[in-house]
Amino acid sequence: MPVNYTTPEPADLLPVAGVRLGTAEAGIRKKNRRDLTLIELAPGSQVAGVFTQNRFCAAPVTVCREHLAASPAMRALVINTGIANAATGDAGLAAARDSCAGVAQLLGCSAQEVLPFSTGVILEHFPTDKLLAALPAAQADLKVDQWHAAAHAIMTTDTVAKAASRRVTSADYSCVVTGMSKGAGMIRPNMATMLGFIATDAGIAPTLLQQLVQDAADVSFNCITVDGDTSTNDSFILMATGASGLRIDSETSPHWPAVREAVIGVAQELAQAIVRDGEGATKFITIKVGAGNTAAECRQVAYAIGHSPLVKTAFFASDPNLGRILAAIGYAGINDLDAAGVKVWLGSNGEEVLVSENGGRAASYREADGARIMQAAEITVRVDLARGVAQATVWTCDFSYDYVKINADYRS
Amino acid sequence: MPVNYTTPEPADLLPVAGVRLGTAEAGIRKKNRRDLTLIELAPGSQVAGVFTQNRFCAAPVTVCREHLAASPAMRALVINTGIANAATGDAGLAAARDSCAGVAQLLGCSAQEVLPFSTGVILEHFPTDKLLAALPAAQADLKVDQWHAAAHAIMTTDTVAKAASRRVTSADYSCVVTGMSKGAGMIRPNMATMLGFIATDAGIAPTLLQQLVQDAADVSFNCITVDGDTSTNDSFILMATGASGLRIDSETSPHWPAVREAVIGVAQELAQAIVRDGEGATKFITIKVGAGNTAAECRQVAYAIGHSPLVKTAFFASDPNLGRILAAIGYAGINDLDAAGVKVWLGSNGEEVLVSENGGRAASYREADGARIMQAAEITVRVDLARGVAQATVWTCDFSYDYVKINADYRS
Repeated sequence: MPVNYTTPEPADLLPVAGVRLGTAEAGIRKKNRRDLTLIELAPGSQVAGVFTQNRFCAAPVTVCREHLAASPAMRALVINTGIANAATGDAGLAAARDSCAGVAQLLGCSAQEVLPFSTGVILEHFPTDKLLAALPAAQADLKVDQWHAAAHAIMTTDTVAKAASRRVTSADYSCVVTGMSKGAGMIRPNMATMLGFIATDAGIAPTLLQQLVQDAADVSFNCITVDGDTSTNDSFILMATGASGLRIDSETSPHWPAVREAVIGVAQELAQAIVRDGEGATKFITIKVGAGNTAAECRQVAYAIGHSPLVKTAFFASDPNLGRILAAIGYAGINDLDAAGVKVWLGSNGEEVLVSENGGRAASYREADGARIMQAAEITVRVDLARGVAQATVWTCDFSYDYVKINADYRS
Repeated sequence: MPVNYTTPEPADLLPVAGVRLGTAEAGIRKKNRRDLTLIELAPGSQVAGVFTQNRFCAAPVTVCREHLAASPAMRALVINTGIANAATGDAGLAAARDSCAGVAQLLGCSAQEVLPFSTGVILEHFPTDKLLAALPAAQADLKVDQWHAAAHAIMTTDTVAKAASRRVTSADYSCVVTGMSKGAGMIRPNMATMLGFIATDAGIAPTLLQQLVQDAADVSFNCITVDGDTSTNDSFILMATGASGLRIDSETSPHWPAVREAVIGVAQELAQAIVRDGEGATKFITIKVGAGNTAAECRQVAYAIGHSPLVKTAFFASDPNLGRILAAIGYAGINDLDAAGVKVWLGSNGEEVLVSENGGRAASYREADGARIMQAAEITVRVDLARGVAQATVWTCDFSYDYVKINADYRS
């Protein structure tokens, strides 16, 4: 059960003019499930993306990078679950290219105008023939109001579909930002998450779009972790069709701040949804580290806390065993950290208590307060490093029996 | 149940001339268990140690560093379980100093000739009075043949006591190396493990002794990980009493290689015992990474594999989901790694199969081979990075339901 998250109703997901989505059963790895999603973009659409830094990046990631480097003008995205097409060598690259060619032939565009995405088991042969055979069914299913169905079709170990939508309006224009994401395990994005797709019917100049996808990733998908495992397939894609008539060509456009904020807001909602649906998650944890020398060292400390199996199991047990948090801060790698200056607070439901200062337990701290806060489903850990003004936030979840169960059983 | 490890019989642990050990019930955190250990060293004994790099290092670690910096000549060690005396601020430092003073008074030495060690819960007040009250009982219990009892008394979440012993002999001398360690969780030593103590009745010059404790740590306690959490209390201590009459004053001593090898052998046995008894462990995993540019990058890759919750749960499930290993290699942080050159083998029981090459699954690899090897209790992962001649080895265990259970329940 995800932590405080339910999939939005289909009616709450606003169609994006210029974007049609269709799904089909390709039987990539298992039968009787919609494992193929096709997204068609109107002519003139611009796309930008950020991708995993994993050196064993998947074949579709390599092909996405090539196609986007050639031109940001795209006509389609093709997404499959079941097999990740990662660590599949030259055969995997050929499979990703053949998938794009198959889509291009159906839609009457060039293969370079198609971006491929895969998610699932690594190191297994990719059955291109199954994908190609199911493409016509996905094409026949293309409609503008299918974000809900597509968000379901891209799920793997996810227990809920993840989607979000916002409308941006002012006196002289109106546009829409809608997105979806998937991911529950192997989540420690480095540049992007497992899969995230956001579309807007605003028109955005390619350089601005690339900057925005990076900025949005940095404060959303790049701030989450479930298990510290950076996937081979992480991809976060931002699409701008321009079909609303609104055009943004520079940062000085009066409409830019509102559109940018909407995109970042949707990205954060989708990223947090992945943590809320983290494999086995029972708690949603926000880790805020401040007063650091650099944002990088704040992130380092936040991830040390967020990745510690001891901290994560204590959250699962609702046990205020807070020394584990101090231990994680201490081994995070800041070699000149003055432990005596560090302060740690624990909070939930609008309450916050000081846990540690002067290198030890805060005089005012009562175990009963820690125990009460740890019962909550959403908990914030706030750390003050007392050495600068930089800060960073990371979102994560706890570590439960079910994480082990899910990952011990995943392939069977 | 530890993986292929049982505590040596008391008769198999050789007493070390010049070392007496005693235990007592101090009731530091729980009653009715021997939680206090006193080690008395003969006059003239030399001691060297390496300690945690955690910035929230425990008060006893700080005091050990101070005392060893003043002089390597030591007369006693005092060790308690239950409370770690870490993140306890100035009061914790005073408690560690008072513990040393109490031992010094009993044994008729200076407080600076005593080293204190604690292990247990972090961030909790240390009850010095309880420790001091139990010291006379520990003193009354001092005997040379108590390594077995002491190895039991220093346990926390350990399920078995860990000890090892070797005799080094040649035509003209004979000496003994005996040691013990504790630790099962919060294990990712950085300089040393939770607690490791090795003694020899050889006499070893202080500079050699310090070099040896570092060298031994680097190929033993610094090569293991259970959960990636570096403890606040890691300490690894090497004691040389000289009571055997053997004196080693330089590296050119003809006896040095054999004594050095025995110390390193005992250290490796104790370090591996910690992994075999890792919290919830059902498998013992050796990760060998070779053909790297530097030993550091080989360790980085080995730890990425060894810390990955996805890899560890796959080992628990005996599931050859080997793409997870490639993903971990890929995100280990070698930014110019050529994934196409990497080779990965999986082995157990004298058999080894090539799993991956050319960026994908090896043509010769059969899932049935991987499945058979994954059933074994001891498994080796060998990685060839194809970029140099450096290598590194890390020992770790799998990740099971019981790890979560143990750490969710630890304080209750």
